Amino acid sequence: MIEQMSCDERFLTLAKELNYDIYGENTAGGHYVPLIRHHDEVYVSGLVPRMNGKIQYPGRVGKELNLADAQAAASISAMRGLSLIVDAIGSLDKIKSLIRVTVYVRCTEDFVDLSDVANGASDVFSHVLGDAGKHTRTTVGVYQLPKNAAVEVDMIVALRPSAL
Amino acid sequence: MIEQMSCDERFLTLAKELNYDIYGENTAGGHYVPLIRHHDEVYVSGLVPRMNGKIQYPGRVGKELNLADAQAAASISAMRGLSLIVDAIGSLDKIKSLIRVTVYVRCTEDFVDLSDVANGASDVFSHVLGDAGKHTRTTVGVYQLPKNAAVEVDMIVALRPSAL
Amino acid sequence: MIEQMSCDERFLTLAKELNYDIYGENTAGGHYVPLIRHHDEVYVSGLVPRMNGKIQYPGRVGKELNLADAQAAASISAMRGLSLIVDAIGSLDKIKSLIRVTVYVRCTEDFVDLSDVANGASDVFSHVLGDAGKHTRTTVGVYQLPKNAAVEVDMIVALRPSAL
Repeated sequence: MIEQMSCDERFLTLAKELNYDIYGENTAGGHYVPLIRHHDEVYVSGLVPRMNGKIQYPGRVGKELNLADAQAAASISAMRGLSLIVDAIGSLDKIKSLIRVTVYVRCTEDFVDLSDVANGASDVFSHVLGDAGKHTRTTVGVYQLPKNAAVEVDMIVALRPSAL
Repeated sequence: MIEQMSCDERFLTLAKELNYDIYGENTAGGHYVPLIRHHDEVYVSGLVPRMNGKIQYPGRVGKELNLADAQAAASISAMRGLSLIVDAIGSLDKIKSLIRVTVYVRCTEDFVDLSDVANGASDVFSHVLGDAGKHTRTTVGVYQLPKNAAVEVDMIVALRPSAL
Repeated sequence: MIEQMSCDERFLTLAKELNYDIYGENTAGGHYVPLIRHHDEVYVSGLVPRMNGKIQYPGRVGKELNLADAQAAASISAMRGLSLIVDAIGSLDKIKSLIRVTVYVRCTEDFVDLSDVANGASDVFSHVLGDAGKHTRTTVGVYQLPKNAAVEVDMIVALRPSAL
Protein backbone atom coordinates (compact mmCIF):
# COMPACT_ATOMS: atom_id res chain seq x y z
CA MET A 1 0.00 0.00 0.00
CA ILE A 2 2.67 2.46 1.10
CA GLU A 3 4.50 1.89 -2.18
CA GLN A 4 1.67 3.53 -4.10
CA MET A 5 1.95 6.80 -2.23
CA SER A 6 4.11 9.57 -3.63
CA CYS A 7 7.19 10.74 -1.70
CA ASP A 8 5.28 13.89 -0.81
CA GLU A 9 2.39 11.89 0.62
CA ARG A 10 4.72 9.72 2.68
CA PHE A 11 6.48 12.86 3.92
CA LEU A 12 3.23 14.53 5.00
CA THR A 13 2.02 11.34 6.68
CA LEU A 14 5.26 10.99 8.61
CA ALA A 15 5.24 14.69 9.55
CA LYS A 16 1.76 14.21 10.99
CA GLU A 17 2.85 11.14 12.96
CA LEU A 18 5.84 13.04 14.36
CA ASN A 19 3.74 16.16 14.91
CA TYR A 20 6.32 18.01 12.80
CA ASP A 21 5.37 21.45 11.45
CA ILE A 22 6.86 21.19 7.98
CA TYR A 23 7.03 24.91 7.29
CA GLY A 24 7.89 25.99 10.81
CA GLU A 25 11.68 25.73 10.79
CA ASN A 26 12.73 26.99 7.40
CA THR A 27 15.07 29.67 8.61
CA ALA A 28 18.79 29.65 9.31
CA GLY A 29 20.25 30.60 12.68
CA GLY A 30 23.20 32.57 11.33
CA HIS A 31 24.41 34.68 8.43
CA TYR A 32 23.79 32.05 5.77
CA VAL A 33 20.94 30.52 3.78
CA PRO A 34 19.31 27.16 4.45
CA LEU A 35 19.66 25.89 0.91
CA ILE A 36 21.26 26.67 -2.47
CA ARG A 37 20.38 25.08 -5.79
CA HIS A 38 23.16 24.73 -8.37
CA HIS A 39 22.14 23.05 -11.64
CA ASP A 40 20.57 19.73 -10.66
CA GLU A 41 22.06 19.74 -7.17
CA VAL A 42 20.65 21.20 -3.97
CA TYR A 43 23.00 21.91 -1.08
CA VAL A 44 21.30 21.99 2.33
CA SER A 45 22.96 23.67 5.33
CA GLY A 46 23.76 21.76 8.50
CA LEU A 47 20.48 21.26 10.35
CA VAL A 48 20.04 20.80 14.06
CA PRO A 49 16.85 19.11 15.33
CA ARG A 50 14.68 22.19 15.74
CA MET A 51 10.91 21.83 16.07
CA ASN A 52 8.39 24.47 17.08
CA GLY A 53 11.25 26.95 17.37
CA LYS A 54 13.14 24.86 19.92
CA ILE A 55 16.07 22.43 19.78
CA GLN A 56 14.72 18.97 20.52
CA TYR A 57 16.81 16.53 22.57
CA PRO A 58 19.57 18.97 23.56
CA GLY A 59 22.56 17.37 25.26
CA ARG A 60 25.33 14.87 24.74
CA VAL A 61 24.65 11.35 23.50
CA GLY A 62 25.90 8.83 26.05
CA LYS A 63 25.34 11.29 28.91
CA GLU A 64 22.02 13.20 29.00
CA LEU A 65 20.73 11.31 25.95
CA ASN A 66 20.47 7.64 25.03
CA LEU A 67 20.51 6.03 21.59
CA ALA A 68 16.74 6.31 21.08
CA ASP A 69 16.80 10.04 21.91
CA ALA A 70 19.67 10.58 19.50
CA GLN A 71 17.90 8.69 16.72
CA ALA A 72 14.78 10.80 17.28
CA ALA A 73 16.94 13.94 17.08
CA ALA A 74 18.50 12.71 13.83
CA SER A 75 15.07 12.00 12.35
CA ILE A 76 13.96 15.58 13.10
CA SER A 77 17.04 16.98 11.34
CA ALA A 78 16.24 14.74 8.37
CA MET A 79 12.62 15.94 8.30
CA ARG A 80 13.82 19.56 8.38
CA GLY A 81 16.01 18.84 5.37
CA LEU A 82 13.15 17.31 3.41
CA SER A 83 10.88 20.16 4.44
CA LEU A 84 13.36 22.74 3.12
CA ILE A 85 13.60 20.86 -0.17
CA VAL A 86 9.82 20.64 -0.61
CA ASP A 87 9.63 24.35 0.06
CA ALA A 88 12.35 25.14 -2.49
CA ILE A 89 11.60 22.80 -5.38
CA GLY A 90 7.92 21.98 -4.84
CA SER A 91 8.04 18.20 -4.53
CA LEU A 92 10.20 15.48 -3.03
CA ASP A 93 9.33 13.31 -6.02
CA LYS A 94 11.87 15.37 -8.00
CA ILE A 95 14.74 13.87 -5.97
CA LYS A 96 16.98 11.35 -7.72
CA SER A 97 19.31 10.60 -4.81
CA LEU A 98 21.00 12.13 -1.78
CA ILE A 99 24.54 12.13 -3.03
CA ARG A 100 25.98 13.15 0.35
CA VAL A 101 24.61 13.07 3.87
CA THR A 102 26.91 14.03 6.76
CA VAL A 103 25.76 13.26 10.28
CA TYR A 104 27.56 14.93 13.19
CA VAL A 105 26.82 13.43 16.60
CA ARG A 106 27.68 15.25 19.83
CA CYS A 107 28.67 12.36 22.05
CA THR A 108 30.73 11.29 25.02
CA GLU A 109 34.31 10.11 24.75
CA ASP A 110 33.36 6.43 24.77
CA PHE A 111 30.09 6.39 22.79
CA VAL A 112 30.82 4.45 19.59
CA ASP A 113 27.36 3.54 18.21
CA LEU A 114 27.43 6.53 15.89
CA SER A 115 26.15 4.59 12.88
CA ASP A 116 23.06 3.61 14.85
CA VAL A 117 22.37 7.28 15.61
CA ALA A 118 22.81 8.22 11.96
CA ASN A 119 20.35 5.49 10.95
CA GLY A 120 17.69 7.68 12.59
CA ALA A 121 18.18 10.12 9.70
CA SER A 122 18.82 7.46 7.04
CA ASP A 123 15.60 5.64 7.89
CA VAL A 124 13.56 8.80 7.34
CA PHE A 125 15.15 9.24 3.92
CA SER A 126 14.48 5.61 2.97
CA HIS A 127 10.91 5.67 4.27
CA VAL A 128 9.95 8.91 2.55
CA LEU A 129 11.94 8.69 -0.67
CA GLY A 130 12.09 4.94 -1.29
CA ASP A 131 14.81 4.09 -3.81
CA ALA A 132 15.61 7.78 -4.30
CA GLY A 133 16.49 7.88 -0.59
CA LYS A 134 19.72 6.00 -1.26
CA HIS A 135 22.64 8.05 -0.02
CA THR A 136 26.31 8.05 0.77
CA ARG A 137 26.95 8.94 4.38
CA THR A 138 29.71 10.16 6.65
CA THR A 139 29.13 9.95 10.39
CA VAL A 140 31.46 11.46 12.97
CA GLY A 141 31.32 12.15 16.69
CA VAL A 142 31.98 15.80 17.49
CA TYR A 143 32.76 17.66 20.66
CA GLN A 144 30.14 20.35 20.38
CA LEU A 145 27.28 21.48 18.12
CA PRO A 146 25.41 24.79 17.77
CA LYS A 147 22.91 25.51 20.54
CA ASN A 148 23.75 22.37 22.51
CA ALA A 149 22.14 20.16 19.83
CA ALA A 150 22.89 16.43 19.91
CA VAL A 151 22.91 15.93 16.15
CA GLU A 152 23.48 17.97 13.00
CA VAL A 153 22.82 16.75 9.45
CA ASP A 154 23.76 18.32 6.12
CA MET A 155 22.92 17.08 2.62
CA ILE A 156 23.63 17.34 -1.08
CA VAL A 157 20.65 16.27 -3.16
CA ALA A 158 20.62 15.35 -6.86
CA LEU A 159 17.42 16.05 -8.81
CA ARG A 160 15.88 13.92 -11.57
CA PRO A 161 16.43 15.21 -15.12
CA SER A 162 12.64 15.53 -15.45
CA ALA A 163 12.69 18.02 -12.56
CA LEU A 164 14.82 20.56 -14.40
CA MET B 1 29.18 53.89 -2.17
CA ILE B 2 30.44 50.45 -1.25
CA GLU B 3 27.85 48.92 -3.57
CA GLN B 4 29.58 50.46 -6.57
CA MET B 5 32.88 48.77 -5.86
CA SER B 6 33.64 45.42 -7.46
CA CYS B 7 34.09 42.33 -5.30
CA ASP B 8 37.80 42.51 -6.01
CA GLU B 9 37.99 46.10 -4.81
CA ARG B 10 36.10 45.29 -1.63
CA PHE B 11 38.41 42.33 -1.06
CA LEU B 12 41.57 44.42 -1.47
CA THR B 13 40.19 47.14 0.78
CA LEU B 14 39.33 44.65 3.49
CA ALA B 15 42.71 42.93 3.14
CA LYS B 16 44.38 46.30 3.69
CA GLU B 17 42.25 46.99 6.76
CA LEU B 18 43.11 43.57 8.20
CA ASN B 19 46.74 43.90 7.14
CA TYR B 20 46.28 40.61 5.30
CA ASP B 21 48.91 39.64 2.71
CA ILE B 22 46.65 38.22 0.02
CA TYR B 23 49.32 36.23 -1.76
CA GLY B 24 51.27 35.19 1.30
CA GLU B 25 49.45 32.02 2.37
CA ASN B 26 48.62 30.25 -0.87
CA THR B 27 50.31 27.00 -0.03
CA ALA B 28 49.02 23.83 1.59
CA GLY B 29 50.56 22.36 4.74
CA GLY B 30 50.40 18.72 3.62
CA HIS B 31 50.40 16.42 0.62
CA TYR B 32 47.44 18.04 -1.11
CA VAL B 33 46.58 21.11 -3.17
CA PRO B 34 44.83 24.23 -1.90
CA LEU B 35 42.19 24.29 -4.61
CA ILE B 36 40.77 22.27 -7.52
CA ARG B 37 38.48 23.56 -10.24
CA HIS B 38 35.98 21.13 -11.76
CA HIS B 39 33.70 22.59 -14.44
CA ASP B 40 32.07 25.65 -12.87
CA GLU B 41 32.89 24.61 -9.32
CA VAL B 42 35.98 25.36 -7.25
CA TYR B 43 36.76 23.18 -4.23
CA VAL B 44 38.94 24.88 -1.61
CA SER B 45 40.82 22.83 1.00
CA GLY B 46 40.24 23.31 4.71
CA LEU B 47 41.97 26.54 5.70
CA VAL B 48 43.32 27.44 9.11
CA PRO B 49 43.79 31.13 9.98
CA ARG B 50 47.37 31.53 8.79
CA MET B 51 48.79 35.00 8.22
CA ASN B 52 52.40 35.98 7.63
CA GLY B 53 53.33 32.31 7.84
CA LYS B 54 51.91 31.88 11.33
CA ILE B 55 48.65 30.50 12.75
CA GLN B 56 46.71 33.43 14.20
CA TYR B 57 44.70 32.96 17.41
CA PRO B 58 45.91 29.45 18.22
CA GLY B 59 44.07 27.75 21.07
CA ARG B 60 40.67 26.53 22.14
CA VAL B 61 37.60 28.75 21.96
CA GLY B 62 36.07 29.08 25.43
CA LYS B 63 39.47 28.59 27.09
CA GLU B 64 42.45 30.54 25.68
CA LEU B 65 40.21 32.37 23.19
CA ASN B 66 36.97 34.32 23.48
CA LEU B 67 34.24 34.80 20.88
CA ALA B 68 35.83 37.90 19.33
CA ASP B 69 39.17 36.09 18.90
CA ALA B 70 37.41 33.15 17.28
CA GLN B 71 35.50 35.40 14.90
CA ALA B 72 38.74 37.13 13.92
CA ALA B 73 40.29 33.70 13.28
CA ALA B 74 37.30 32.70 11.12
CA SER B 75 37.56 35.91 9.12
CA ILE B 76 41.23 35.19 8.35
CA SER B 77 40.36 31.70 7.09
CA ALA B 78 37.66 33.26 4.91
CA MET B 79 40.13 35.82 3.53
CA ARG B 80 42.58 33.01 2.74
CA GLY B 81 39.84 31.23 0.80
CA LEU B 82 39.00 34.33 -1.23
CA SER B 83 42.68 34.97 -1.82
CA LEU B 84 43.19 31.46 -3.22
CA ILE B 85 40.21 31.92 -5.53
CA VAL B 86 41.45 35.27 -6.85
CA ASP B 87 44.80 33.68 -7.48
CA ALA B 88 43.26 30.73 -9.36
CA ILE B 89 40.50 32.34 -11.43
CA GLY B 90 41.59 35.96 -11.61
CA SER B 91 38.62 37.73 -10.08
CA LEU B 92 36.11 37.30 -7.26
CA ASP B 93 33.49 38.89 -9.51
CA LYS B 94 33.28 35.53 -11.30
CA ILE B 95 31.69 33.92 -8.22
CA LYS B 96 27.99 33.08 -8.41
CA SER B 97 27.61 31.64 -4.91
CA LEU B 98 29.38 29.65 -2.21
CA ILE B 99 27.36 26.49 -2.42
CA ARG B 100 28.98 24.99 0.69
CA VAL B 101 30.96 26.48 3.56
CA THR B 102 31.94 24.23 6.46
CA VAL B 103 33.26 25.86 9.62
CA TYR B 104 35.05 23.71 12.19
CA VAL B 105 35.55 25.33 15.58
CA ARG B 106 37.99 23.93 18.16
CA CYS B 107 36.13 24.66 21.37
CA THR B 108 35.61 23.61 24.97
CA GLU B 109 33.03 21.05 26.04
CA ASP B 110 30.47 23.68 26.98
CA PHE B 111 31.00 26.38 24.35
CA VAL B 112 27.81 26.47 22.27
CA ASP B 113 27.97 29.81 20.40
CA LEU B 114 29.41 28.12 17.34
CA SER B 115 27.14 29.95 14.89
CA ASP B 116 28.45 33.26 16.21
CA VAL B 117 32.02 32.12 15.52
CA ALA B 118 31.10 31.01 12.01
CA ASN B 119 29.50 34.40 11.34
CA GLY B 120 33.06 35.76 11.41
CA ALA B 121 33.65 33.93 8.13
CA SER B 122 30.14 34.47 6.74
CA ASP B 123 30.36 38.22 7.27
CA VAL B 124 33.56 38.41 5.21
CA PHE B 125 31.84 36.56 2.37
CA SER B 126 28.79 38.85 2.52
CA HIS B 127 30.86 42.01 2.76
CA VAL B 128 33.19 41.14 -0.12
CA LEU B 129 30.85 39.27 -2.46
CA GLY B 130 27.50 40.94 -1.76
CA ASP B 131 24.62 38.81 -3.05
CA ALA B 132 27.08 36.28 -4.49
CA GLY B 133 28.30 35.74 -0.93
CA LYS B 134 25.15 33.79 -0.08
CA HIS B 135 26.09 30.35 1.14
CA THR B 136 24.90 27.21 2.83
CA ARG B 137 26.84 26.49 5.98
CA THR B 138 27.59 23.68 8.35
CA THR B 139 29.21 24.55 11.67
CA VAL B 140 30.51 21.99 14.13
CA GLY B 141 32.64 22.04 17.26
CA VAL B 142 35.65 19.76 16.97
CA TYR B 143 38.15 18.41 19.45
CA GLN B 144 41.30 19.34 17.62
CA LEU B 145 42.50 21.11 14.46
CA PRO B 146 45.80 21.09 12.59
CA LYS B 147 48.56 23.12 14.21
CA ASN B 148 46.48 24.06 17.24
CA ALA B 149 44.26 26.33 15.10
CA ALA B 150 40.98 27.53 16.59
CA VAL B 151 39.02 27.49 13.34
CA GLU B 152 39.15 25.75 9.96
CA VAL B 153 36.98 26.66 6.96
CA ASP B 154 36.48 24.81 3.67
CA MET B 155 34.40 25.90 0.67
CA ILE B 156 32.80 24.87 -2.58
CA VAL B 157 32.31 27.81 -4.91
CA ALA B 158 30.07 28.03 -7.98
CA LEU B 159 31.17 30.32 -10.80
CA ARG B 160 28.97 32.50 -13.01
CA PRO B 161 28.32 31.11 -16.51
CA SER B 162 30.02 34.22 -17.90
CA ALA B 163 33.21 33.18 -16.10
CA LEU B 164 33.59 29.94 -18.05
CA MET C 1 59.68 2.16 -13.99
CA ILE C 2 56.71 2.72 -11.72
CA GLU C 3 55.57 5.56 -13.99
CA GLN C 4 54.84 3.11 -16.77
CA MET C 5 52.37 1.11 -14.74
CA SER C 6 48.69 1.98 -14.92
CA CYS C 7 46.89 3.26 -11.82
CA ASP C 8 45.17 -0.11 -11.55
CA GLU C 9 48.51 -1.93 -11.60
CA ARG C 10 49.95 0.33 -8.92
CA PHE C 11 46.81 -0.19 -6.85
CA LEU C 12 47.01 -3.97 -7.09
CA THR C 13 50.71 -3.95 -6.29
CA LEU C 14 50.17 -1.79 -3.22
CA ALA C 15 47.21 -3.91 -2.10
CA LYS C 16 49.46 -6.97 -2.26
CA GLU C 17 52.18 -5.20 -0.26
CA LEU C 18 49.65 -4.16 2.39
CA ASN C 19 47.95 -7.57 2.27
CA TYR C 20 44.72 -5.71 1.55
CA ASP C 21 41.78 -7.71 0.18
CA ILE C 22 40.49 -5.25 -2.39
CA TYR C 23 37.01 -6.71 -2.67
CA GLY C 24 36.60 -7.68 0.96
CA GLU C 25 35.24 -4.47 2.49
CA ASN C 26 32.82 -3.14 -0.08
CA THR C 27 29.81 -2.95 2.19
CA ALA C 28 28.45 -0.18 4.36
CA GLY C 29 27.90 -0.58 8.11
CA GLY C 30 24.57 1.29 8.23
CA HIS C 31 21.48 2.18 6.23
CA TYR C 32 23.34 3.84 3.38
CA VAL C 33 25.35 2.94 0.27
CA PRO C 34 29.13 3.02 -0.03
CA LEU C 35 29.16 5.10 -3.21
CA ILE C 36 26.94 7.10 -5.57
CA ARG C 37 27.82 8.28 -9.05
CA HIS C 38 26.27 11.52 -10.30
CA HIS C 39 27.31 12.58 -13.80
CA ASP C 40 31.12 12.61 -13.79
CA GLU C 41 31.40 12.67 -10.01
CA VAL C 42 31.57 9.77 -7.58
CA TYR C 43 30.71 10.38 -3.93
CA VAL C 44 32.25 7.86 -1.53
CA SER C 45 30.86 7.41 2.00
CA GLY C 46 33.02 7.94 5.07
CA LEU C 47 35.32 4.94 5.35
CA VAL C 48 36.87 3.60 8.52
CA PRO C 49 40.03 1.43 8.24
CA ARG C 50 38.34 -1.96 7.95
CA MET C 51 40.33 -4.93 6.68
CA ASN C 52 39.33 -8.59 6.76
CA GLY C 53 36.06 -7.57 8.38
CA LYS C 54 37.74 -5.87 11.33
CA ILE C 55 38.60 -2.27 12.22
CA GLN C 56 42.37 -1.91 12.09
CA TYR C 57 44.16 0.30 14.62
CA PRO C 58 41.14 1.04 16.83
CA GLY C 59 41.70 3.68 19.50
CA ARG C 60 42.58 7.31 19.97
CA VAL C 61 45.61 8.87 18.29
CA GLY C 62 47.94 10.29 20.92
CA LYS C 63 46.80 7.71 23.49
CA GLU C 64 46.55 4.06 22.34
CA LEU C 65 47.94 4.93 18.90
CA ASN C 66 51.01 6.81 17.70
CA LEU C 67 51.47 8.75 14.46
CA ALA C 68 52.68 5.73 12.47
CA ASP C 69 49.62 3.69 13.53
CA ALA C 70 47.32 6.53 12.56
CA GLN C 71 48.99 6.92 9.16
CA ALA C 72 48.60 3.19 8.56
CA ALA C 73 44.91 3.46 9.49
CA ALA C 74 44.48 6.38 7.08
CA SER C 75 46.15 4.45 4.28
CA ILE C 76 43.71 1.55 4.76
CA SER C 77 40.73 3.91 4.53
CA ALA C 78 42.24 5.33 1.34
CA MET C 79 42.70 1.85 -0.11
CA ARG C 80 39.07 1.02 0.72
CA GLY C 81 37.99 4.13 -1.18
CA LEU C 82 40.02 3.19 -4.24
CA SER C 83 38.74 -0.36 -4.03
CA LEU C 84 35.13 0.81 -4.02
CA ILE C 85 35.80 3.00 -7.05
CA VAL C 86 37.45 0.19 -9.02
CA ASP C 87 34.49 -1.99 -8.20
CA ALA C 88 31.98 0.65 -9.35
CA ILE C 89 33.60 2.12 -12.46
CA GLY C 90 36.01 -0.61 -13.54
CA SER C 91 39.32 1.20 -13.49
CA LEU C 92 41.17 3.80 -11.46
CA ASP C 93 42.64 5.13 -14.70
CA LYS C 94 39.27 6.82 -15.28
CA ILE C 95 39.90 9.22 -12.38
CA LYS C 96 40.68 12.85 -13.23
CA SER C 97 41.12 14.13 -9.68
CA LEU C 98 39.87 13.78 -6.12
CA ILE C 99 38.07 17.04 -5.81
CA ARG C 100 37.46 16.62 -2.08
CA VAL C 101 39.01 14.39 0.56
CA THR C 102 37.97 14.84 4.18
CA VAL C 103 40.04 13.14 6.87
CA TYR C 104 38.59 12.83 10.37
CA VAL C 105 41.09 11.86 13.06
CA ARG C 106 39.99 10.62 16.49
CA CYS C 107 42.68 12.11 18.70
CA THR C 108 43.50 13.34 22.16
CA GLU C 109 42.96 16.90 23.30
CA ASP C 110 46.54 17.93 22.64
CA PHE C 111 47.43 15.95 19.49
CA VAL C 112 48.01 18.51 16.75
CA ASP C 113 49.87 16.61 14.01
CA LEU C 114 46.64 15.96 12.15
CA SER C 115 48.08 16.84 8.75
CA ASP C 116 50.74 14.19 9.19
CA VAL C 117 48.04 11.59 9.88
CA ALA C 118 46.09 12.67 6.80
CA ASN C 119 49.23 12.35 4.68
CA GLY C 120 48.86 8.59 5.24
CA ALA C 121 45.79 8.73 3.00
CA SER C 122 47.12 11.41 0.64
CA ASP C 123 50.29 9.43 -0.03
CA VAL C 124 48.27 6.40 -1.14
CA PHE C 125 46.31 8.59 -3.56
CA SER C 126 49.50 10.12 -4.97
CA HIS C 127 51.29 6.79 -5.25
CA VAL C 128 48.43 4.99 -6.97
CA LEU C 129 46.95 7.77 -9.10
CA GLY C 130 49.99 9.91 -9.88
CA ASP C 131 48.93 13.36 -11.11
CA ALA C 132 45.27 12.35 -10.95
CA GLY C 133 45.77 11.82 -7.23
CA LYS C 134 45.88 15.56 -6.64
CA HIS C 135 43.18 16.51 -4.17
CA THR C 136 41.85 19.23 -1.93
CA ARG C 137 41.75 18.14 1.67
CA THR C 138 40.13 19.04 4.95
CA THR C 139 41.52 17.45 8.10
CA VAL C 140 39.90 17.76 11.52
CA GLY C 141 40.34 16.11 14.89
CA VAL C 142 37.10 14.60 16.15
CA TYR C 143 35.97 13.26 19.51
CA GLN C 144 34.67 9.94 18.36
CA LEU C 145 34.30 7.80 15.23
CA PRO C 146 32.12 4.79 14.38
CA LYS C 147 33.27 1.52 15.93
CA ASN C 148 36.14 3.10 17.84
CA ALA C 149 38.05 3.75 14.58
CA ALA C 150 41.01 6.13 14.67
CA VAL C 151 40.46 7.61 11.22
CA GLU C 152 37.61 8.10 8.75
CA VAL C 153 38.02 9.32 5.16
CA ASP C 154 35.38 10.41 2.64
CA MET C 155 35.91 11.46 -0.97
CA ILE C 156 34.41 13.12 -4.02
CA VAL C 157 36.05 11.93 -7.22
CA ALA C 158 35.90 13.54 -10.66
CA LEU C 159 36.14 11.26 -13.69
CA ARG C 160 37.91 11.92 -16.97
CA PRO C 161 35.63 12.92 -19.88
CA SER C 162 36.85 9.82 -21.70
CA ALA C 163 35.41 7.69 -18.88
CA LEU C 164 31.82 8.78 -19.49
